Amino acid sequence: MRIAVDAMGGDHAPDEIVRGALLYRTSGGPADIVLVGRGEAIRGALGNRDRSGITVVEASDVVAMHEHPANALRRRPDTSIGVATALVKRGEADAVVSAGNTGATVAAALFTLGRIKGIDRPALCGMLPTTAGKPACILDVGATPEAEVRNLLEYAVMASRFMESVHGLTRPSVGLLNMGEEEEKGDRLRRETHVALRAAATLNFVGNVEGRDVMRGTTDIAVCDGFTGNVLIKGLEGTVDVFREAIRDDIFGGPLGKIAYLFGLLGVRRMRHKLDYDPYASAPLLGVDGVSVVTHGRARANMLRWAIVVAERAASGGLISAIAQSAATTARP
Amino acid sequence: MRIAVDAMGGDHAPDEIVRGALLYRTSGGPADIVLVGRGEAIRGALGNRDRSGITVVEASDVVAMHEHPANALRRRPDTSIGVATALVKRGEADAVVSAGNTGATVAAALFTLGRIKGIDRPALCGMLPTTAGKPACILDVGATPEAEVRNLLEYAVMASRFMESVHGLTRPSVGLLNMGEEEEKGDRLRRETHVALRAAATLNFVGNVEGRDVMRGTTDIAVCDGFTGNVLIKGLEGTVDVFREAIRDDIFGGPLGKIAYLFGLLGVRRMRHKLDYDPYASAPLLGVDGVSVVTHGRARANMLRWAIVVAERAASGGLISAIAQSAATTARP
Repeated sequence: MRIAVDAMGGDHAPDEIVRGALLYRTSGGPADIVLVGRGEAIRGALGNRDRSGITVVEASDVVAMHEHPANALRRRPDTSIGVATALVKRGEADAVVSAGNTGATVAAALFTLGRIKGIDRPALCGMLPTTAGKPACILDVGATPEAEVRNLLEYAVMASRFMESVHGLTRPSVGLLNMGEEEEKGDRLRRETHVALRAAATLNFVGNVEGRDVMRGTTDIAVCDGFTGNVLIKGLEGTVDVFREAIRDDIFGGPLGKIAYLFGLLGVRRMRHKLDYDPYASAPLLGVDGVSVVTHGRARANMLRWAIVVAERAASGGLISAIAQSAATTARP
Repeated sequence: MRIAVDAMGGDHAPDEIVRGALLYRTSGGPADIVLVGRGEAIRGALGNRDRSGITVVEASDVVAMHEHPANALRRRPDTSIGVATALVKRGEADAVVSAGNTGATVAAALFTLGRIKGIDRPALCGMLPTTAGKPACILDVGATPEAEVRNLLEYAVMASRFMESVHGLTRPSVGLLNMGEEEEKGDRLRRETHVALRAAATLNFVGNVEGRDVMRGTTDIAVCDGFTGNVLIKGLEGTVDVFREAIRDDIFGGPLGKIAYLFGLLGVRRMRHKLDYDPYASAPLLGVDGVSVVTHGRARANMLRWAIVVAERAASGGLISAIAQSAATTARP
């Protein structure tokens, strides 16, 4: 197996991306890695470390974090994400991983790999650590701003296959993100989707969930339109940041706080461990005809390493064919 | 001034509600309080404390937290929220405050007080403490599940008047909650609303904001449809709870944690103070023709006291007439 990694994508590219690839290999990762980007920069980041199983493919250009992705990809044929995705299309890699501009990763996947037959719109999973001690996902978190019933139904199916083949769950539970638990709650889209989800035999639909359920891991999967999902996941991430800063600056800030930190260190580690989501911060873009894994722009080596693991599991676990099969058999509303 | 308080609404009614009313009075609150509910229970909660400025109005029935609000109000004429809202309609009170079933408070206000002329749909403010050290509001957080451009524009106008007359802000800044900062981001509703907000002369519209901006207080007001706002605010509250538990159990849980707590106590207080939102957790339902303040179901005495302060300021600051005037002069899209 070979996994193409966009070496130029992300806030800490190429150094942390290259370090992540090396970490994946030294920790026993079986897939070969193709680092795609500016050869000189990549070789500089590799230094004189063991490069076995790692090759470099040249791409001279990069889509910047704030560029308009579709325009950039159309006009510039030699971007790292474009070249890396083309490797998957040509069968020279089994998956692509990027910490770069998410819109560009989505656009490259749509243009180059296309959609899986029977899937109307792609969806991005937002992965979260939960207090239930297991990962959960919300989707769509922004691949498709507007959704209809059909789309939400497809998101539920795709995420179920993803949580099975990548995270090893059996019959992952699906919740419909809504304004209340009762079936009649929410807007027209939610009320109609509730009925459609209940009727879908291939899904373990348990009912409506609310915003507060997501961090609790009430269900393995929470389904919503891309607008709501995007606002929610950014809100949750922002709140996590606010608390991290408050714990660091307010609780452990002053001179007494520094003493408190010495005694509280084990506890801080316990909390960090519980809420650590490096291992599952990454998820494939669901619905495209090839494995394209999106990870955080701020990913460092350890998160990148786990993104490669997700790509490897999605490719070896047959995620794409599982989605294609489900798409062919799921009744449309 | 007289403020009607639904003494039976909320998780800790009537004791904490009654205590909140007493706290309001003993801390110098100028308004008289009318406690509405089961007289015997209220008098029990009042005990033999100083009741000056406090009267009791009998209402034998209560809308429970999980009842269907409109049905309950239609069928049962003697609920505490129904009777309290009717006092405002008849001019026997200047505002109503409730920690009970939010849907019932909204339904009672709509049925009894009606909408302000020129306002299409009501909106509920979600108030948040922010790291900027000042309150911010998101609306709508669930009064109206589906919104059109006109509604979002009206929400922005109503919240501006609210932040001025109740929180004393001058030209409060308005952000449109969206998937990105760029004008062209989001679904059709957001793109069209962005244009309408930019054109509204009575607003201090600063552009799009994202989910992470809300807890940061990037703008004083964040505008969105009631579905998104409801999911987001419950998500944020859920995350705050998760961190509170983690700080208590993980960091300060074990024997070492208890020592850490001794040294970290001042810091914990500092953080609590920064994120304390009792003073502004409550907000009027905006768009109805009378002051109806909604507070948390889990409100205890201190939060209830502040809810009465919000009602008093909204009534004395002329919130309703300010909204009515803005509604008459704001150009519709």
